[in-house]
Amino acid sequence: MPGAAPATPDQAALLSELLQRRLLVETGVPGVYGRGGAFEDVRERLAACVSREVADEHPEQLRFPPVIPRRDLERVDYLRSFPHLAGSIFAFEGDEAQAAELQERASRHEDWSEHQTMTELVLTPAACYPVYPAIAARGRLAVGGITVDAGAAYVFRHEPSGDPARLQMFHQRELVRIGEPEVVQAWRDSWRERALGLLGTLGLDVELDVATDPFFGRSGRMLAASQREQQLKFEVLTPIAGPERTAVASFNYHQDHFASTYGIELADGAGAHTACLGFGLERITIALFRTHGFDSEGWPPEVRQALWQA
Amino acid sequence: MPGAAPATPDQAALLSELLQRRLLVETGVPGVYGRGGAFEDVRERLAACVSREVADEHPEQLRFPPVIPRRDLERVDYLRSFPHLAGSIFAFEGDEAQAAELQERASRHEDWSEHQTMTELVLTPAACYPVYPAIAARGRLAVGGITVDAGAAYVFRHEPSGDPARLQMFHQRELVRIGEPEVVQAWRDSWRERALGLLGTLGLDVELDVATDPFFGRSGRMLAASQREQQLKFEVLTPIAGPERTAVASFNYHQDHFASTYGIELADGAGAHTACLGFGLERITIALFRTHGFDSEGWPPEVRQALWQA
Repeated sequence: MPGAAPATPDQAALLSELLQRRLLVETGVPGVYGRGGAFEDVRERLAACVSREVADEHPEQLRFPPVIPRRDLERVDYLRSFPHLAGSIFAFEGDEAQAAELQERASRHEDWSEHQTMTELVLTPAACYPVYPAIAARGRLAVGGITVDAGAAYVFRHEPSGDPARLQMFHQRELVRIGEPEVVQAWRDSWRERALGLLGTLGLDVELDVATDPFFGRSGRMLAASQREQQLKFEVLTPIAGPERTAVASFNYHQDHFASTYGIELADGAGAHTACLGFGLERITIALFRTHGFDSEGWPPEVRQALWQA
Repeated sequence: MPGAAPATPDQAALLSELLQRRLLVETGVPGVYGRGGAFEDVRERLAACVSREVADEHPEQLRFPPVIPRRDLERVDYLRSFPHLAGSIFAFEGDEAQAAELQERASRHEDWSEHQTMTELVLTPAACYPVYPAIAARGRLAVGGITVDAGAAYVFRHEPSGDPARLQMFHQRELVRIGEPEVVQAWRDSWRERALGLLGTLGLDVELDVATDPFFGRSGRMLAASQREQQLKFEVLTPIAGPERTAVASFNYHQDHFASTYGIELADGAGAHTACLGFGLERITIALFRTHGFDSEGWPPEVRQALWQA
């Protein structure tokens, strides 16, 4: 198994500080950490800021667990674009003798993968994925479509790294818009400004840029070029561990990708379009600690007011 | 792959009602559901009730993601007792040609497990598991030990079932006590009454009973008998789909199992004991809807007051 991507000195220093102050808690696996109370407090207040910001759209609240059916990952072609990031879930289906052998190997920390079988489940790769089949199952949309608040869901990316801003398991605070193409595009455009404003209010040095997904392999480079040319993905970026910027929110316009896969239809029977907006809650939380200091009680009054308002 | 355990008529009717009212949302895999806004509202208020109940102990807040290091599952011997319930995480480590083959098979919903390799991670089987190594890493406990509030964490059990009260992925609202044996036992005993009281206040018909874990195989029957004889596990039970009772909270006294594995030491260097209390939030939420009606706005005033108090 390849090792974790090494941290830069800036990233290593930041991780060390976060661990020392018990904002993060080491587990022994890079990119998988516990969170201390002060960290969680900020992360939950951030999630609530997004709820307040989207309240005037009266989104439907939908929440999904950190696993989705394997069949859905297969249907949406995730494995073509990101085979290297997916996590699949295996389990034991054997008898008592096999269980004894599994346990024997596991107790010596040897390989027990032979006694594991692929299940029907995979880890959720993005918080919006389970939303599309759920909405499709209801039949045609109302005129104007629907906004879904998918909450703050744990998602998985298999990219072990020493950079505390690159976690294998983290919360995406996700909003999804499904409807007529022009409605979806206008929503995406308006949220670019709103998200920049929201993160700016928290005292982060943010900027917006066209972006691409981390597609796999050579064919992935073509997918990325096409995505960039069509401006399908934008990101909000901010410095975290050092001067270089890291994405902390991303806007994705999927055109008819998910809607045609699941058959999501507009009120008149035409195909819908979809877009989503995801805030990386742990990245923003770490950026806030890095920017304003590791004790959140000493943060600037306007930042505290924005986060802890009633 | 074996199919899901079939639902009783009562369970099937309850699931159907929960889905129709969009309290739960079907994904296509038994025991894996989305949650609607009204369901989540109750589930979150329940979690907050537990926070209020434990506040006078000033627990340390610690949160962990729904994955833990595989090495920890191996160390605590989980695979001896529950090999059938564990979920391990696999990922792709191949090259472009292998990725193409993986995608080809996946697009036809064929078996692509050959292109998956075991990672360092497994799904979290119980919310308290990551707490023990984290506390051990700090060195000796203070006198009196520590109470940890592990929040509401998603945990996995590989037991697909048509019973809506038997989920594969659900939230455990978990408290952990680590300290001197008599301190830990007294804590466990006091919380048996407090938990019964809390759930009784919500209008549930609850009772307490000695219980056993669902150990695997023949040797598991001996483990269960010993666990029962020593009264190491108690459960709070309530009717959910039908008249038979289902566990909605469980108290587990581990004696020195976790503490000796990780070397958790008391202030004087002696070995600590541990206990945990877990509330099954989805089960309690479903029990509340089943008991008081599927529209939470019509619930009895005293139940609404207990859940939605400021």
